[in-house]
Amino acid sequence: MKTIGAVDIGGTKIAVGAASEDGRIIGRVECSTRPESGFADAMDRIKQMLHRVAVDTGSGFMGIGIACPGPLDQASGVIGEVGTLPGWQGGNLIATLEEEFGIPIAVENDADAAALAEANCGAGRGSRHLIYVTVSTGIGAGILIDGHLYRGAHGVHPEIGHQIIDASAGSSCYCKAAGCWESLASGEALAAWMQQRQPSAPPKTAAEICRLAEAGDTLALEAMDREGYYLGLGVANLITISAPDTIVLGGGVMKSSPLFLPRAIKTIHHVCTQVPVENTKIATAALGADTGLAGAAQAWLARYARP
Amino acid sequence: MKTIGAVDIGGTKIAVGAASEDGRIIGRVECSTRPESGFADAMDRIKQMLHRVAVDTGSGFMGIGIACPGPLDQASGVIGEVGTLPGWQGGNLIATLEEEFGIPIAVENDADAAALAEANCGAGRGSRHLIYVTVSTGIGAGILIDGHLYRGAHGVHPEIGHQIIDASAGSSCYCKAAGCWESLASGEALAAWMQQRQPSAPPKTAAEICRLAEAGDTLALEAMDREGYYLGLGVANLITISAPDTIVLGGGVMKSSPLFLPRAIKTIHHVCTQVPVENTKIATAALGADTGLAGAAQAWLARYARP
Repeated sequence: MKTIGAVDIGGTKIAVGAASEDGRIIGRVECSTRPESGFADAMDRIKQMLHRVAVDTGSGFMGIGIACPGPLDQASGVIGEVGTLPGWQGGNLIATLEEEFGIPIAVENDADAAALAEANCGAGRGSRHLIYVTVSTGIGAGILIDGHLYRGAHGVHPEIGHQIIDASAGSSCYCKAAGCWESLASGEALAAWMQQRQPSAPPKTAAEICRLAEAGDTLALEAMDREGYYLGLGVANLITISAPDTIVLGGGVMKSSPLFLPRAIKTIHHVCTQVPVENTKIATAALGADTGLAGAAQAWLARYARP
Repeated sequence: MKTIGAVDIGGTKIAVGAASEDGRIIGRVECSTRPESGFADAMDRIKQMLHRVAVDTGSGFMGIGIACPGPLDQASGVIGEVGTLPGWQGGNLIATLEEEFGIPIAVENDADAAALAEANCGAGRGSRHLIYVTVSTGIGAGILIDGHLYRGAHGVHPEIGHQIIDASAGSSCYCKAAGCWESLASGEALAAWMQQRQPSAPPKTAAEICRLAEAGDTLALEAMDREGYYLGLGVANLITISAPDTIVLGGGVMKSSPLFLPRAIKTIHHVCTQVPVENTKIATAALGADTGLAGAAQAWLARYARP
């Protein structure tokens, strides 16, 4: 049986699997990323895991797809200065695996890969123009237009998470733009706001704040209201600017979406009056933990099987 | 000689002309719009002007293109509830001219038509992904991707002018979204801000404020600084979200661009750090008073001669 090897590189763990030609994940192993061990060490582990998955699933790979955080040159496979993978800059994902396996390799920004996965196998099936937004530590996004990944001039991956939505809000971001979406609605923004309101309390993660809100904590509930408002403003802008047929919201923070999504939807309906908001389906991601592997496989299929 | 009839409908005047197959405008007449006389009356004048232009230029029309403010169903030719054309709602531009001339008619939102014109004959020649922004009473835009007009789900024209850039700024708009681009950087926003700062002075138009700034008036210069800042924030978002190769800025307010464009460019370079801003050319519109007619002709060419 021929399958597609799939590699999902994250700051915390690396997952490796195999996917059937219709994109189903049929085998999966994982290991800690340990970015500090360096690019070459991680690639050795990835090669071993790929060989093991091939044996476990009794399959031969027709190609390998990789999803990796950006910045990243998806044409050459060279990693840029990735915040969660310090020291990996200049490592070439394509060249390393091509040398080992001698088959076509495709590399994609992780948010773009997730957009392909949700559009082909997840919440966005049947969409022609889909925006996938991952709300986790930061906010990333992938855009599909007419079913293909959208890229800007010179193949650039847009950075929707850094659109400015509230320039006077006083939030700050490493991007230097005060009031960008990521600085107001990401997991880190949630944690920073809570810390600012309770400077003497121990720092809390976004997940901890969500658990407090579930338990009825007043300040955490206020944080959820703020999260919903700013998530909604950013999504509203995507509708106003591009009127996509589907927006899929994924990422770690969205696991707690019942706490703030209703507020986001209310905000969207309030401010989005110039394009028909009912034309855009707003959905939460459907693929869960397999999004990265499914996206890696879809990135390969998009490049080599559905050009 | 065969030409394309071109009709440019604005809230103040209607221009009618003929364009050669390469898009050059070779004849031009105009009249006041007088929207209050109603749709049928205006269409009678448009028909007469088209016949006159055909005679004057010694040409027969192979088709007619129309640029008209939206909302507008460009497929059917039916006008929606257009702020500057009250009472025209439901009027059918295509059916009316098809009946008179028996040739193919194309209708386009005026900002979309201007985008086609600047991309094909103006400041955006050679661009594949261009955003044309008109900064006048309001802010409108047209988007070209791979040389074609971009439309959202169900053919919707996006409304970039209503993206939210400063939700806490306290500005308000008919769109209901506080802090939208139009409410902060349009000609009307400029006039409203000045009025707020000088409540006892007689109201000034954007053009008057620009003239005062040219003469060195301190408050008018402050208004120019604010105009540049907010114009820059909105343009920066377009780059961050879509990394186009070209952004063309046109419309009445841009006639005074030396007063505020340098501040806008500075703002863009300051806040746009996550996508390479140098990949996007920022230009002022090149076609001037002929933009509407050239856009109308290009709308027809896009629909019938370059499908």
